[in-house]
Order: sequence, then C-alpha cells, then structure tokens
Amino acid sequence: MPEKLVVIGGVAAGPKAAAKAKRCRPDLEVVIYQEEGAVSYGGCGLPYYVSGKIKERNQLLARTKEQFAQDGIQVKLKHRVEEIKVKEKKIKGLNLETGDQFVDTYDKLVLATGSFPIRPQVAGADLKGVFYLRSIFDADLLVQQLFSAQIQNVVIVGGGYIGLEMAESLSELGKKVTIVEKMPQIVTLFDQDMARLVQRYLEKKGMQVLVGEGLQEIRGEQGRVSSIRTANQEIRADAVLLSLGIRPRVELARQAGLRLGETGAIWVNERMETSAEDVFAAGDCVESTHLISGKRVWIPLGSTANKQGRVVGINVSGGAAVFPGVLGTAIFKVFDFKVAKTGLNMREAEQAGFSPLSAIVRGYSGAHYYPGMKESVLKVIADQKSGRILGAQAVGEGPSDKFIDVISMALLGRMDCSTLGNADLAYSPPFSPALSPVLVAAHVLQNKREKVFEWITADEVKNKLERAADEFVLLDVREEKEVKEKRIPGSLWIPLGQLEENIGKLDNKKEIAIHCHSGARSYKGYLKLKHKGFKNIKNVDGGILCWPEELKGAL
Amino acid sequence: MPEKLVVIGGVAAGPKAAAKAKRCRPDLEVVIYQEEGAVSYGGCGLPYYVSGKIKERNQLLARTKEQFAQDGIQVKLKHRVEEIKVKEKKIKGLNLETGDQFVDTYDKLVLATGSFPIRPQVAGADLKGVFYLRSIFDADLLVQQLFSAQIQNVVIVGGGYIGLEMAESLSELGKKVTIVEKMPQIVTLFDQDMARLVQRYLEKKGMQVLVGEGLQEIRGEQGRVSSIRTANQEIRADAVLLSLGIRPRVELARQAGLRLGETGAIWVNERMETSAEDVFAAGDCVESTHLISGKRVWIPLGSTANKQGRVVGINVSGGAAVFPGVLGTAIFKVFDFKVAKTGLNMREAEQAGFSPLSAIVRGYSGAHYYPGMKESVLKVIADQKSGRILGAQAVGEGPSDKFIDVISMALLGRMDCSTLGNADLAYSPPFSPALSPVLVAAHVLQNKREKVFEWITADEVKNKLERAADEFVLLDVREEKEVKEKRIPGSLWIPLGQLEENIGKLDNKKEIAIHCHSGARSYKGYLKLKHKGFKNIKNVDGGILCWPEELKGAL
Repeated sequence: MPEKLVVIGGVAAGPKAAAKAKRCRPDLEVVIYQEEGAVSYGGCGLPYYVSGKIKERNQLLARTKEQFAQDGIQVKLKHRVEEIKVKEKKIKGLNLETGDQFVDTYDKLVLATGSFPIRPQVAGADLKGVFYLRSIFDADLLVQQLFSAQIQNVVIVGGGYIGLEMAESLSELGKKVTIVEKMPQIVTLFDQDMARLVQRYLEKKGMQVLVGEGLQEIRGEQGRVSSIRTANQEIRADAVLLSLGIRPRVELARQAGLRLGETGAIWVNERMETSAEDVFAAGDCVESTHLISGKRVWIPLGSTANKQGRVVGINVSGGAAVFPGVLGTAIFKVFDFKVAKTGLNMREAEQAGFSPLSAIVRGYSGAHYYPGMKESVLKVIADQKSGRILGAQAVGEGPSDKFIDVISMALLGRMDCSTLGNADLAYSPPFSPALSPVLVAAHVLQNKREKVFEWITADEVKNKLERAADEFVLLDVREEKEVKEKRIPGSLWIPLGQLEENIGKLDNKKEIAIHCHSGARSYKGYLKLKHKGFKNIKNVDGGILCWPEELKGAL
Repeated sequence: MPEKLVVIGGVAAGPKAAAKAKRCRPDLEVVIYQEEGAVSYGGCGLPYYVSGKIKERNQLLARTKEQFAQDGIQVKLKHRVEEIKVKEKKIKGLNLETGDQFVDTYDKLVLATGSFPIRPQVAGADLKGVFYLRSIFDADLLVQQLFSAQIQNVVIVGGGYIGLEMAESLSELGKKVTIVEKMPQIVTLFDQDMARLVQRYLEKKGMQVLVGEGLQEIRGEQGRVSSIRTANQEIRADAVLLSLGIRPRVELARQAGLRLGETGAIWVNERMETSAEDVFAAGDCVESTHLISGKRVWIPLGSTANKQGRVVGINVSGGAAVFPGVLGTAIFKVFDFKVAKTGLNMREAEQAGFSPLSAIVRGYSGAHYYPGMKESVLKVIADQKSGRILGAQAVGEGPSDKFIDVISMALLGRMDCSTLGNADLAYSPPFSPALSPVLVAAHVLQNKREKVFEWITADEVKNKLERAADEFVLLDVREEKEVKEKRIPGSLWIPLGQLEENIGKLDNKKEIAIHCHSGARSYKGYLKLKHKGFKNIKNVDGGILCWPEELKGAL
C-alpha cells in the first residue's frame, strides 16, 4: 500500500509541498485539506485584484482543485481540520459544506495553516464597512463593496506594507485615503529616516498619513461605519481597512502538543520537522532562524513559504533538504516607490549585539548622462568591529529591488564592506553608474570604519541647533538652486566651489557639521576643511534628505 | 615639498585614481597627462550620443579640466607621454598643440593608458566612410557624418557588444544595418544557445546578421566606401563601422621595461602595482585575476576601471587597498533586450577544469498574474562535482541585470547550488515570482547533480533525429496553441495533460527525449513516464527555446 501524505492548508506552502512530494514520489497518496473554498492562490496579489490592476480573479489562482487532481493530488475544499492525534497519526475535522465530521489517517503530515489578521479590541470593529485583507474572500468582499460611490473616505489602520499597498489600490479607485499608525513611524521594519521618505512620498501623492495615533474606537451610524477616533482626533470614514498585522495560526499545532517557538509560531528544525514524528510544518505558521542575528524570528512571506514548501516536499518523500533560515528580505511597491529591505535595521543590529554603522547614498538606475534615470535612496548597514554587512534598505523610484537583492546575497555570503566594495556588478549606462551605488555605500562604510572622517546624524544636528547653537555651525555646501528649494533653518550656506575663498567665515573653534543633499559633496567639503586644519568637523549622514522635518527654501 | 603624482591617461581609471589620491592626501601634487582633447568622459555612453538619445556632448563629460583644477588637480590635455624612465622617475612627451617636447618628474606614477581598436589588415580600411568607435572624437565624427541621408546602408563588422549597441543606434537613425561576424555566433562571450536568442531578436528588429563571415575587403568608389566583401558575398555599404574588438595600449609600459602579463596587458599585483617601483597601473591597460578560473584575464570594462582607479588612488597616497580580481560580469542593451553575463560560460568552465552543468529557465520580472511582466531567458552554470556556481547568462526583455548581479554575488561568495537555492531575495508580485527564477535554476542544477533526471541538449536531439530516427522519439508535451506556432519536425505531439491516456503511443524500447517551451513542463512529463516504468528517457535542456534553427508551426 502506498504511503499517505496529508497536507493541512492550501494557499502557498501546502500546495508547494504537496506538488513537490508527488513529483519526487509519484506513488505517494497526497491529500490537501483546505478550509477555504479556493486553493493555491496568490495571496500577495490581492491588493492588485482589489484595485482592478489584475482584471480576473482567476488569474490569481495558480492551480485549481481539478488541476491538482490531474497530477494525482486530492484537494478537499471547505474541509476544516479540527484535531490532530499525533500518536495515532489521525486527523479529525468538519466538512463545512455538509456539516459532517470526517476522520483521516496519515503517514506524513504537513501543517501549512498560515496566519490570521489581528482584530483590534475596540468598539465598532464589527460595524458594516470594516474590512480586512487576508484571504481571497476578503478581497472579493472589498471588490463588491468598495466600488460604491458612497464610499469616498477610507481610513487604513496600520502603516505596514499591506496597508500601504492598499493605500495605492484605494487611491487608484478614487478614494480619499487616510493612513493611521500608532507607532511614531510607518513601515516599522525600516529605520525612521527611510520611513520618513516613504511617508513624504505618500503625502505628495495626496494621502493623509497620521503617525503616533492609535485606533481607539470605530463609530457608526445605523450599523455602518461613519468615523474612527484616535487619542487626538475623529476622522471621517465611509470604510475602514484594518491592517494591524498578522499572527501565526497555531491552534491546531498547540492542541496537538507540538512545540511552539519563542516567537509564538510553530517550532521546526532545519528539515522543517516539528517536535512530533512525521509531522512537518511550513509557511506563515512556522518560525525560522535569522541568518544574521542568529535569533529565532517570525517573518511570514510568500517567498519563504514557497522555499519551505519545497524543502518539506523533498523531506516527506524521503529526501534530505534543509532550509537554513531567512534574512528578512522584503519589498513592496506603493505607486512608483519601491520600498525594500534585507537583513537588520539599525535598531535590530544593536539588539543583536552589533555596533552598526550606516551609509546613505543616492542609488541611480543608470549612468548620470543616461536619460530617464530613476533614483532610490540606499542605506547600507555594517558592523563597526568586523566590517560585516548587516543589512540594507532602499526607498524610491530607482532599482531598490536590485540593490536589496545584491545586498541580500552579500549577507548570505557573510561578506564584509571590503569584499562588497570590489563586487563585480553588471555595468553599462542604461543599467547602472560605473560604480554601482552598492559599491559606493560599501566604500563609505569602509571610510567610516577606518575613521577617514567623522559624522553626525541629521537628528543630532537638529538637537544641537536647538540646544547649543552658539558652539555649533551647520554648513550647507549645496548650490543656489537647491538652497532656494529647501534649506535647514540656521544653516550657513557656502557652495562647495566657493568654500576655500570663504574659509574665513568659519570659526574653527566651533563644532562644524557639513551637509549637502545626501552626503557626497559635503564629504569633499569635510576633507577640504580638514586639510585647512579644522579639527572639530563632521559630515552629516544622508544630508538634507534625512532631515526629520519638512523644509522651505530660503537664500 | 609635497610629493608628486603623475597620471598618464584621462578617461576613467586615471581621473578616478587622481581624484581619490587628492582626497586622501590633499597636499599631493597631482597632474594628469591626457593625449586627447577631453578628459573624464563616459566612454560607455558613446553609442547613445551617436543615436541622439544623449542630446548634449557635454552630458558625457563627468568633469572638465577646470573642475579638476578647482580640486587642485592639473590636467594637461593634448599632451602625449612618449617615454617613461622608471629609474630616474621621469617622463618625456610631446605637447600636441605646440609641438614642443616636455619633461616631468614623479614620485608615484599611474599608467591608465587604456586600449585601442583593432584595425583589420584588409584593403580599403582607410577609405572615407570607414569608422571606429572608441573615443569621444570617433563619436563626434560619426555624429557629423552619419546624419547624411546619403548614408543608408551601414555594415557593422564585429558582433560584440559595442557592435550591437551601435546596431541599435544606427537603426534608430533610420539606417539599414547589416552585422557581419566571422565567428559562428555573435557575442562570443556567451554560449551559442544564448547568442542565437540575441541573433533572432536582432533579425526580428529588421537587422541582417551574418555569422561565420569574415571581412575580406572594403571596396570603394572615388575614395568612398561602397561595399564590403566576405568569403561568400559582397554587401553594399554607404558606411562601415569596424568593431573588431580592442587591445590594451601597452607600448609605453613595454618601452619602460614594465612586465607584461600572459594576456598581453600590463601585469599588476593585487595592490595594482606594476613590476617597477612606485609605478601603478589601472583600467583597460592592465590584466586581472579571474576569481572563478583563477587565470589571468584581460576583461576591459568601465566598472573595473573605476574600482581599480580607486584602489590605486588609496595606495599611491599611503593607504592599503587591494583589487582581488574580476568575475567578467558584463551587460549591454540592444533595443529592449538586456544581454548580461557573469562568471564562466560552458566552454570557459570546461577549459578551467570544471565539469559544467547548466540550467535554462524562463526568468519572469513578476508574479505570473501581475500585468506587464517581462521575460528573460536565464542560464546558470554549476560544477557537477562540487556544486559550485560558475557563471550565468541572461537574455531578454526581463530583469537580466538583476539576475546577473545576484549570481555575480553568489560567485563572489563561492556559493554552491544548494546555498543559492535558499537565497532570500525580495519578493512581491510586481518584482518577482514567489520563487525567483534564480532559485528555480539553482533547484534544476541540484536535481541534475542528484541525478533526479537525465537530460539532453537541443543540438544533440537534432543530431539524433537526423541520424538515428528509428530508435529515437522526440516527444513534444506543449499545448495546441504553441505547436501551431512552431514545432520541431519529426516530433510526436502529446499535450502534458493527455500524456497518461496516450502512453500506449510511446515505445519504451526507444530512447525518448521530452521537450516543452523551456523545460519545466517536460520535466513533469519526464517524471510521469519514469513512474510508468520508462527507463531510457531524457528531458530536453532549454526546450524548443534553444532549438538551433528557425521553426514553423504544424499540427
């Protein structure tokens, strides 16, 4: 008799594990139990289905129940598994269509139970017009109801990547969008300076973004949402999208006595085995090892689910594959902005025991003379002691995805700034500057490590200007055109080209911080002053680009 | 007295070394000698200046002589250095404007003498209307003369990347372009299967591409080119662009007694020091170490020149930087096709003593359901024994640049297929399929290494069909629509979904090769047949995509 593989969960990791196992061992009996009425769909594409960018719901379905059947895989839709008996190798559950209970046995079991959205404990969360976006059925509901012209003002609670993707989708449907985030910044996986760039971009696109404002209440009229309240204000809302994050779906695993990890997700080893014999788990319901911090982390992503599903598929069919861990690489698009991250941010790096340094550079998509060039801001983080690259963030209309993929590979190879600084990346004018921005960032990090220059953050500058303005000079070395556009109040402006002849204007007894747009020209100014004998000078990291507040121009 | 740095050569590596050295040691006296009348220009952008895509010549100039002067760097234009006396630390040369000789001394010397185009030894090479494209002055000449409506037919001799970039430029100027290449394929750094994809694309774009046809003679009328002759034919030509490759410019180094390497370029160590004390060299005139083969190679590129210039700048000013070597990463664009490579191709891998395996996959730019997705064909090469990744090639309208950059980082990190197969790359639907094509290729390579399946190349299939058709079956498992478009003559067509019910049509005593578009579906068919007990079966690498000839549809 052939062995039997039972898979619980049918969106990403589950179907991948089932298909791979069946390919490796065609004699295996394979059954997928799926609570929802659809299987193997592109969950990450839902915001684009809501916006109408993806025209047909069917396009999101990678494979139907019938297609699985053709490959000899049985899919049981609307079957909710409610109990696992690991000693008896049995599962029990409910057929949601007929209301009948069912029982099944397995030789190998795969848990791919995914995650569920956080539902806030506030009044009004069950009013009509309050939505979530997790499953394809949530998306169906949004598509049905949001097209109504009566829904004009939409509040998105939560400034994470799904919230922002939906901000784009809803805005493209002509809605007036307000984003409400209780933390002091949106996209909390990013450093605050990078998050601010995203926020400013969204504001330019006409969205209202409120940070540091937690949802306190959803108010309604006649059972329908009419506004939301934060600590500070009431915001009109014809609809509310709650996008407060997700949690691993682990009830079934907990009930079965499987070990849960410190993150609350299912514990698995490198082979994706749970603590129970012949029971594997993969996808959003499991935790992984972070390859930089070495810590257990829960970073649910469709890409990870697919890789883990493959490893499980190989292992349940007698092979020997491993999934060593994750780097936390992630990307999302909001309008033309590409927002991407890999590895650790500054705070995470400190928490992991590193002494992080960062370099912020302008990341162009092509040579300076090539038409249509796009720009992202690239921040790369390395450890001061070892020089090891720890992470990166990229934000903008430029090739954020390419930069982050390249640096994720540097992380995977445990490279230091010196190795990264000599990487051999593909160059020709339409594709990159001759020196890739990734290399430029690595060179800046090397210079910082070797104390070639001293630096200061924009936030520190702001503080000093406010508290110790007498002993402190902020020198702006940009061109007139730029200063007319925006200028930091209290700064002294001397264009780089005129620095030497105006050196008398600078008091070398004071601390002098030098800034330009992002830090490259001010670095040159720094070296000129250093050569002239100035001692107490610093280059402003990320320049005016990372200034924490909105600025106006002034000559 | 401050030390004096003399740099010979002012396009890429030279100015970079000078600028970096001056930044590191502002007290250094720095002089750049440049034979041409322009300095620090974007040589790689010349084809786009010729096409008019870059509107202003000035845009190509990164920095002028005056800008260098502002930073305290003296540029001597139209000064040709003709002799170096390394013992006396002296140089001698000619001021091309005045005709006067000059002499200078140095403490450190940098040779950045670049390269020159190969001039063929054929009759007619000095006729009017015969062009090269190496310097900005060559480009000026082309811009002046090519706009004439009398120049209709242009023959480009040489199918390398500059030849193909110029094919685009000239085609955009309305010229009828013929490319003539003496080797059996264009872009000889690529494997033949990939080169064929580029050739077919160029032909679709209306260009005539002749391979295996060497230039034998350029013919003229009244001193002006009128045609070229190959062994097989005469081709009408109102202008000829000779793009036969370049050679390192090493005369000065040879005369000075510097060691030349086995490639003919200047030998340098990791610090970019030549064999003479205090003499450094960088850019197109030096050879490097290939980080995969370990061999000395000469791969002249603007990106390499910049990195080497930086290392020299640090070292001449007392620092300690190294340039470990190159991976041969390169990219060019021809119309919307992005053609990129890193590491070794199949032939190079064999020559370096590896046992190369390859995987060819379709490299999509986004999730299958995301609109506007573009596709490149991605070929990744690994060593059968160690599993180490050796190289990759990508060709198409998709993100070839990103794929190649990611794999170049895998090469830099000396990764194997198993590590690459679990890389954590940035995924969301607009940017990548959930499983990046890079990972899919790594998985195919792992399967090949583990003998999960047997394979055969398209060229071998063609041979067998011609020679041993009786014992050999080529099974096509694609859909009807695809077969109507193109079909390999002599193939047996059974769509994958109908394979099981039609299994009786297959004779399991014969050798059966299975193909689809690129190899993914035929792999599934392979596993089905294997499960049914077929022994002598093979999957066709790269499918019909890599078929060596043009095909027609037939049901």
